[in-house]
Amino acid sequence: MENDHGSVVEDHGVEMSEQGQITHRRGKRDENGSVETAKASAADQEMEEMTSIEKVFEGKRVPPWKEQLTFRALVVSFVLSIMFSIIVMKLNLTTGIIPSLNVSAGLLGFFFVKSWTKILEKSGLLKHPFTRQENTVIQTCVVAAYGIAFSGGFGSYLFAMSSKTAKQSSEATSSQDIKDPQLGWMIGFLFLVSFIGLFSLVPLRKIMIIDYKLSYPSGTATAFLINGFHTPQGAKLAKKQVKMLGKFFVGSFLWGFFQWFYTAGDNCGFVNFPTLGLEAYKNRFYFDFSATYVGVGMICPYLVNVSVLLGGILSWGIMWPLIGNRKGSWYSATLPTSNLHGLQGYRVFISIAMILGDGLYNFVKVLSKTIPAIIAHARSKNMASTLPLTENGFPATDATISYDEQRRTELFLKDQIPKKVAFVGYLIVAIISIVTVPHIFPQIKWYHILVTYIFAPVLAFCNAYGCGLTDWSLASTYGKLAIFIFGAWVGASHGGVLAGLAACGVMMNIVSTASDLMQDFKTGYLTLASPRSMFISQVIGTAMGCVIAPCVFWLFYKAFADLGVPGTEYPAPYALVYRNMAILGVDGFSSLPKHCLTLCYIFFAGAILINMLRDAVGKKWAQYIPLPMAMAIPFYIGPYFAIDMCMGSLILFIWERLDKTKADAFASAVASGLICGDGIWTLPQSILALAKVKPPICMKFLSRKTNDKVDTFLETLS
Amino acid sequence: MENDHGSVVEDHGVEMSEQGQITHRRGKRDENGSVETAKASAADQEMEEMTSIEKVFEGKRVPPWKEQLTFRALVVSFVLSIMFSIIVMKLNLTTGIIPSLNVSAGLLGFFFVKSWTKILEKSGLLKHPFTRQENTVIQTCVVAAYGIAFSGGFGSYLFAMSSKTAKQSSEATSSQDIKDPQLGWMIGFLFLVSFIGLFSLVPLRKIMIIDYKLSYPSGTATAFLINGFHTPQGAKLAKKQVKMLGKFFVGSFLWGFFQWFYTAGDNCGFVNFPTLGLEAYKNRFYFDFSATYVGVGMICPYLVNVSVLLGGILSWGIMWPLIGNRKGSWYSATLPTSNLHGLQGYRVFISIAMILGDGLYNFVKVLSKTIPAIIAHARSKNMASTLPLTENGFPATDATISYDEQRRTELFLKDQIPKKVAFVGYLIVAIISIVTVPHIFPQIKWYHILVTYIFAPVLAFCNAYGCGLTDWSLASTYGKLAIFIFGAWVGASHGGVLAGLAACGVMMNIVSTASDLMQDFKTGYLTLASPRSMFISQVIGTAMGCVIAPCVFWLFYKAFADLGVPGTEYPAPYALVYRNMAILGVDGFSSLPKHCLTLCYIFFAGAILINMLRDAVGKKWAQYIPLPMAMAIPFYIGPYFAIDMCMGSLILFIWERLDKTKADAFASAVASGLICGDGIWTLPQSILALAKVKPPICMKFLSRKTNDKVDTFLETLS
Repeated sequence: MENDHGSVVEDHGVEMSEQGQITHRRGKRDENGSVETAKASAADQEMEEMTSIEKVFEGKRVPPWKEQLTFRALVVSFVLSIMFSIIVMKLNLTTGIIPSLNVSAGLLGFFFVKSWTKILEKSGLLKHPFTRQENTVIQTCVVAAYGIAFSGGFGSYLFAMSSKTAKQSSEATSSQDIKDPQLGWMIGFLFLVSFIGLFSLVPLRKIMIIDYKLSYPSGTATAFLINGFHTPQGAKLAKKQVKMLGKFFVGSFLWGFFQWFYTAGDNCGFVNFPTLGLEAYKNRFYFDFSATYVGVGMICPYLVNVSVLLGGILSWGIMWPLIGNRKGSWYSATLPTSNLHGLQGYRVFISIAMILGDGLYNFVKVLSKTIPAIIAHARSKNMASTLPLTENGFPATDATISYDEQRRTELFLKDQIPKKVAFVGYLIVAIISIVTVPHIFPQIKWYHILVTYIFAPVLAFCNAYGCGLTDWSLASTYGKLAIFIFGAWVGASHGGVLAGLAACGVMMNIVSTASDLMQDFKTGYLTLASPRSMFISQVIGTAMGCVIAPCVFWLFYKAFADLGVPGTEYPAPYALVYRNMAILGVDGFSSLPKHCLTLCYIFFAGAILINMLRDAVGKKWAQYIPLPMAMAIPFYIGPYFAIDMCMGSLILFIWERLDKTKADAFASAVASGLICGDGIWTLPQSILALAKVKPPICMKFLSRKTNDKVDTFLETLS
Repeated sequence: MENDHGSVVEDHGVEMSEQGQITHRRGKRDENGSVETAKASAADQEMEEMTSIEKVFEGKRVPPWKEQLTFRALVVSFVLSIMFSIIVMKLNLTTGIIPSLNVSAGLLGFFFVKSWTKILEKSGLLKHPFTRQENTVIQTCVVAAYGIAFSGGFGSYLFAMSSKTAKQSSEATSSQDIKDPQLGWMIGFLFLVSFIGLFSLVPLRKIMIIDYKLSYPSGTATAFLINGFHTPQGAKLAKKQVKMLGKFFVGSFLWGFFQWFYTAGDNCGFVNFPTLGLEAYKNRFYFDFSATYVGVGMICPYLVNVSVLLGGILSWGIMWPLIGNRKGSWYSATLPTSNLHGLQGYRVFISIAMILGDGLYNFVKVLSKTIPAIIAHARSKNMASTLPLTENGFPATDATISYDEQRRTELFLKDQIPKKVAFVGYLIVAIISIVTVPHIFPQIKWYHILVTYIFAPVLAFCNAYGCGLTDWSLASTYGKLAIFIFGAWVGASHGGVLAGLAACGVMMNIVSTASDLMQDFKTGYLTLASPRSMFISQVIGTAMGCVIAPCVFWLFYKAFADLGVPGTEYPAPYALVYRNMAILGVDGFSSLPKHCLTLCYIFFAGAILINMLRDAVGKKWAQYIPLPMAMAIPFYIGPYFAIDMCMGSLILFIWERLDKTKADAFASAVASGLICGDGIWTLPQSILALAKVKPPICMKFLSRKTNDKVDTFLETLS
């Protein structure tokens, strides 16, 4: 799921800043080619002939979409949604660091329904066996529901509006800059903004999953795990793969557990291991021993991993240190590094500019291909949607297609969600929002919402596309952009602070549900779940979340009077951070540090140019040109996860050199095991954190000089 | 080699105390059975049929012993001896911590001679090809030579006699307690005491190597590496093994290198990783990530590893904490833990008592078997020595014998070293010593030396036997025993301090050369080197060392006026420690902490009883009864290396379960690679230390409480 304020992995990093988010699912490395790298995965196709998953499942009937959406699935989803919403809410309000719990959701969903069906089976009452499609539906629903507990901003933008947070800040304390939480408007607001992301991207699912073959590493890993759970008896290779997955799952879980013991304080533990030296660590160049990202690196194509690393070197290796040298000249030297008016401003906005450039280019490209297709479709029914696009920019689904891919594509395209549903849905939600949101937040006018909803699909596409490439969903980064744009537009005198925060909420909900949806579609694609049942499950889950999350928050809010007060049990630390951002935001882009905007233009244009170049040179050369989207993500987050991913690439590379057959058959199982084991560990980790069980030891890294001082200090202690 | 004051691995431990030593060589896991565990290695014999090393070498001629001792080998040995003596001497005088450099010796010896022969080959001048036997001879000679730089006590007992060290201590400053270094007497003294160890154990080589099948893990690993270097072209499995060895060699080396970066201060780095928690760490229960001991564990039989662990649990887990509770009652509470009058006294003396009990039992057993054999031998020439002993206590070399074992035994027994040479040599050296040592140290009387030389063979046997089981040579521990016995015997008024230190030197030289010799014989056995050439090489090497080491020390002594002064470049920190021990020693055993002597008696008797039990119950049950010798070693050193070894056992166990064939074929290669890679890393590590290149980072482990305090402290710094 998305974790605002960065995931555990990222935020134990150099400084406590919001970074990005990561979407955790599980699956299988099949369609790991990205745009135009399909050729590179031709070898993978060979392997699929050997290790076809769908051959294993051939005897199993795929239930029609209505049978996938069972009552029991919804009941289990509801129970799990409440449970996870409570966990996420508590973390929101305590540390603000929320790890990904998606793997836990999938796993617990499996065990709940499995034990249920086992009991029914024994008593002879079982009507429908538990299928992997049903499992996917549960997972999707739970993720959608508890995702709202994060994207609802109860620890960030939404609570930032309250008078409690306003009191802690010296500026903007007038009534127009404050809106205290109320159950009613919170539920209403969430319902208004949470569905737009779903409707806006549904029509593009075929392009992103089948044509672009985006990796969605977490979604892929989820699918692999779910397939593993449901492997029919007697499938030998599949059993071996499941065994392999299990081994690495346990290993990764235990590794996470082991690491935990050494994280007694900030900057402690393996996630802060200065593997490349302290200087490199300061610039976030280090291997942080994250099993998740090593696994992600094994699933992502080499090009993505290399692009991410290149981006990291370009930004944290060259640009930020150079800009850092201009401290005092380009921006005030007194600002902390996390301030958007300082170095952090360059990081956030240049990263966003590059992502928007790449995203916009691809969005326009997709539109220019889809609109003619839609027109053609309107003319001759049911043609365009099943015919793969073969023009430049879209890999041809020709002779290289494998049995698995064939079968998956067939089922993915079987249950259509009529484009009309998407468009009409989008329109209705948009109109209702335009009318009602200004009633909730009078500071926002109807035309603000209108403009947002015009650009929303592009941004949703950008985030879903970036997430597909690198597994990072940068919802909170888009939220920050919204704070700036709308804060400045509305202006301080007209309640720009609140308008910015509300716009942040709108934006975050749109982009985070969009990337969630697409990850789920990837899982569904790989488990033969019907897109229609997935979509409905996501809608139901989102609706659940819109009720559950505010209710859970309301419980906390009413139960703990000192909620949001620093130093208490529930300080909700990011609420103030968001409010301060909004206060700065009303000054608009003019308040950005020197040359920041110029650099943004350059990188925006650069991203478009690189994409044009990639399209111009043809597939042969395009595979050597980095992807701007992938390059942009470490601009903000730091290159440490790029190093993890490249480590994954390296392992895969060596493995393929040593034993191609084995690597092809088991690499995806190993990668999924790594991702899932680490993912499931976050559940007990969160519970330990909530139960205030603190790790006993701090593994600290000190320079020799500091260490000498500390040793002297420790002597005085004893 | 032996490293006084503990090896690098051990002394980064909980406290800086002398611990034991480790002898590093390299080799192959064949004869890894210990006394009466031969049955357990029956399976190994099967593997040997498949993976016979000697089959690979069948076509290669084994040169007669005289050809193994080439002139070029001696030249290379001489050069390397000087080089390593300088390194060891510098370390002696700086930190006092000396890592094992044996692997470096073997490797550099190989590359020197190999390049030499390559050049000669090209110019057509090569008469004799470079054989593995010659390589073994070089390695043996270098180890013997630079071993003297350690056992000569230039950083410990010998320098402890000097007026410079005496000045730092308030007691025993009269002239009879002081003897300043002089080149003449040092060389003389070393010549007198360094050969006794060789002569005393030579006759027992067959019993320890062939009958007892002692592991000598380092010697075994050395042999494996040397065999690897000389593998003939076209040997497929051997090539694979060499490749495997190479991989783990490089991995282990890089791991050592990587670890180095994080050891900027005391208690830093992976060797201090509290893997089992801080409480366990305080009692030295932790996995210290030592590749060497994991490899050693893979070579040692399971029984040894389990015994070592049991001993660790019994001592550090139960006894020492219980005795620690008696602090203030059994011994003074104000003493530091490293003081022999406190807890350390229990550790050292109980450990020694148990080792002596086991050693004495086995020595008597061996004697009771050998003396009849010698008598029989005297009657019918050349019979007894080739006939394997089959009585209880000696594994029968019957049907289970493999081709490798057959061939090795054959060559090992081919070139005999007449027992007469050993006895006559021992007698001559003993008589000369008895006459001359009292001239060097008037405080020591002729009868002291006589008594020492009567017991020396037992102690030499004990150390060589323990080293064969667990790879630890405890030379400095025996030295401490000598300080106590002779210091008390001579008495403070008659110069007991100096007598104790001199006796320490005699003892250390005897036991350390004895265990060296036997390790080398193991290497020779596995590389088909002639025992005769090995013995001569060891004698030559020892003679070299007796001249080189004092000369190198003399250079330092003359060049640096402030040698031995604390706080300077060459503080020789252990000299004062030894002198203080000698000052305490003159009080004799009465000064030992309460009940220590009683406990010593109990453990001495216990060791004998366990051995009797092992012999009584028969082979079937004996393999479940731990070995007292192996149990005793962690008594003193701490159980952390036992955990490493058990980790090695565990890896081997799992590997054997998963793929017996592969494990049997490659386990020894992996183990040797681990031992050798870590071993060779010590060379650059030592050079870095001498060049004063300090590691940049400290990886520190703090409890949560301490960490909070340190964090507060660090904030005040910045």
